[in-house]
Amino acid sequence: MFVTELFVDGEPAESIPASDRGFLYGHGLFETMRLWQGNLPLLDLHLDRLESGARTLSIVCDLKAIKHQLDFILPKLPAEGLLKLVLTAGDGLRGYPYHSTNKEVKPRCLIQYFPLDGGVSEVRLKLCEYRLPDNPRLAGIKHLNRLDQVMAAAELPPNSDGLLLDQTGNVIEALSSNLFVLYQGQWLTPSLQRSGVAGVMRQLLMEQVIPAVGLTPRCQDIDLGILQVAEEVFICNAVRGVSSVMEITGLNQTLFSAVRTPSSALTQTALIQAELGKHYPCFGE
Amino acid sequence: MFVTELFVDGEPAESIPASDRGFLYGHGLFETMRLWQGNLPLLDLHLDRLESGARTLSIVCDLKAIKHQLDFILPKLPAEGLLKLVLTAGDGLRGYPYHSTNKEVKPRCLIQYFPLDGGVSEVRLKLCEYRLPDNPRLAGIKHLNRLDQVMAAAELPPNSDGLLLDQTGNVIEALSSNLFVLYQGQWLTPSLQRSGVAGVMRQLLMEQVIPAVGLTPRCQDIDLGILQVAEEVFICNAVRGVSSVMEITGLNQTLFSAVRTPSSALTQTALIQAELGKHYPCFGE
Repeated sequence: MFVTELFVDGEPAESIPASDRGFLYGHGLFETMRLWQGNLPLLDLHLDRLESGARTLSIVCDLKAIKHQLDFILPKLPAEGLLKLVLTAGDGLRGYPYHSTNKEVKPRCLIQYFPLDGGVSEVRLKLCEYRLPDNPRLAGIKHLNRLDQVMAAAELPPNSDGLLLDQTGNVIEALSSNLFVLYQGQWLTPSLQRSGVAGVMRQLLMEQVIPAVGLTPRCQDIDLGILQVAEEVFICNAVRGVSSVMEITGLNQTLFSAVRTPSSALTQTALIQAELGKHYPCFGE
Repeated sequence: MFVTELFVDGEPAESIPASDRGFLYGHGLFETMRLWQGNLPLLDLHLDRLESGARTLSIVCDLKAIKHQLDFILPKLPAEGLLKLVLTAGDGLRGYPYHSTNKEVKPRCLIQYFPLDGGVSEVRLKLCEYRLPDNPRLAGIKHLNRLDQVMAAAELPPNSDGLLLDQTGNVIEALSSNLFVLYQGQWLTPSLQRSGVAGVMRQLLMEQVIPAVGLTPRCQDIDLGILQVAEEVFICNAVRGVSSVMEITGLNQTLFSAVRTPSSALTQTALIQAELGKHYPCFGE
C-alpha cells in the first residue's frame, strides 16, 4: 500500500523474509539516489560508499550484480524521482554472529522508486535535544540502524528539519543532510570520525565543487560558537543538492540567521549551487 | 527456510512488508522469552520492559492484544523452547518522522518460536575490541538497532561469547547477557545509564533473587580493575538463567579466572542459581 515500486533482488516484490538480518538487527546499508532523466547522476559515488560500508559490516557487495539489477529496473520506472537501494546481510539464523563466507548466506538487495517530493531551496533548522552517540567504528557509513534519526525527528514539527549535535556538543549534521558552514571566508564541514553519515553530495562538494569555485574546504570539529558567527550555512544531500539555511533556532534563541543579499541568495552558497548545477543540472538551482 | 514458526499479528506468516519501519530504521523492540511447559515464566517482566521501550520509541503498545495473540499461539507450539517477540512501529512512508497518532499507522507484532539450543552452564568470555556507544536516551531498552552486537560478534570465534565495554572502558555486558561481579563480598552489576540492554533476568536477580539469599546487589560503574580482582562473575539472561563465567581473556592476558571449589561450582553463584531455580525450575541448574 505504501510501497510504490519495489524490486527485491531484481524481482518485483512487496515484502522481505522476517529472517532478514536487515530487519532483525539493522544489518544492512542504504543509498538514496536522485533519478534524473532516467539516470542516476551520482551512481558511482553511491556504489563506492555502499561497497565501503559493506566491508565494515562484512556484507558481500556484488556491485556488478547490483548494476545489472539497476539496468533492468531503470527503464521500467519514471524518468524523475529517487531510488532507495538497500543492501542487507540476507537471511540469518537466530543470533548475532554472521557467516558471510557461508555460501548459503546471500545478501539481499532492495531497490525502490519514490517520486520526488516538493523540495525547498531554503530551510530552517531546529536544534534537536537528542544527541548522536559517539561510535567511531560505524561513523560515516549509511547503515540501517537509524533510531537516532527517528528520535531526533520526533522532536520536530511536521515538514521541518533538525540540527544534530554529538554527545560533546559538536555540530554533526541535519536529519538527512550534511552541513557546511562559511566561517571567516572558509567552508567548513563537521568531522564525521565519531558520528554522522558521510554523504556523497558532501564528498562531491569537498572534492570537486568547492575547489572549483576557488576555495579549499576543511573538515573539522564545529561547535555552536562557530555556527553563531558563521557567514553562511547550507545543508546538502544527494536528492536535493544544496539548500541554504536561513535560520537555526534552539536553546531558546536564534543560533544562526542568514544575511540576505538583494537577490535573496547567499552569495557564496549561490556560487556553489551554480557550479554544482553546471555539472549536474538536476541540482542546479 | 530459516523461519521455524512465525506469526505476524497473530497470523502465520513468513515475511513482513518492506515498508515496515522495523526494517527501514530498526524502529522497533524485541523480547526473547523462555518457553517452559507451555508457559512464559517471565512474561510480565518482558511485557513491562516492552511497554517501557515502546514509550521511548513512541510506539503504541497494546499489551492486551499482544497477550491475546500469545494465548492463541502458545497452544500451537512445542512446550519447550523460546519465543522471540518483535514489536515494530509498523509501516512508514519514506522519511524518519513517525506519526503514532495517525490511525493508519498500526504497530506490527511478530512472534516466532525457536527450539532451545544446547546451552552451557559455564562460559568463557573474550573481551571485544568493539566498544558500545554512549547513548543515554536509548540505553537499557531492547530496540532493533543491534549493529553493535553484530560488530562485536564478528570478533569472536564460533560458539563463544564476548565482554563488551563502553567508550570509556567500563564493563557493560556480554553479547546477549547481563553481567554480575562478586567484589569484596558484594554483587555488583554495571550501570546501564549510557549503554547496554537492561535484561529482565538482571531485574529479577536484583529485585528478588539476590536479596533472597541475604545480599544487597549494587548497580555501579565497573572497570576492568574491579573485574580483575573479582571473586566470582556470572552472566544471565531470560533464556538461560545464570551461567558461571570461568574465564575472561583479552588484551593478551587473563582478565579474570574463577577459583574452582571442590564441587566445581562457584559458591555464591551456586546459591543464586539454587534460589532462582526454586521459583523458576527452568532456570534451576
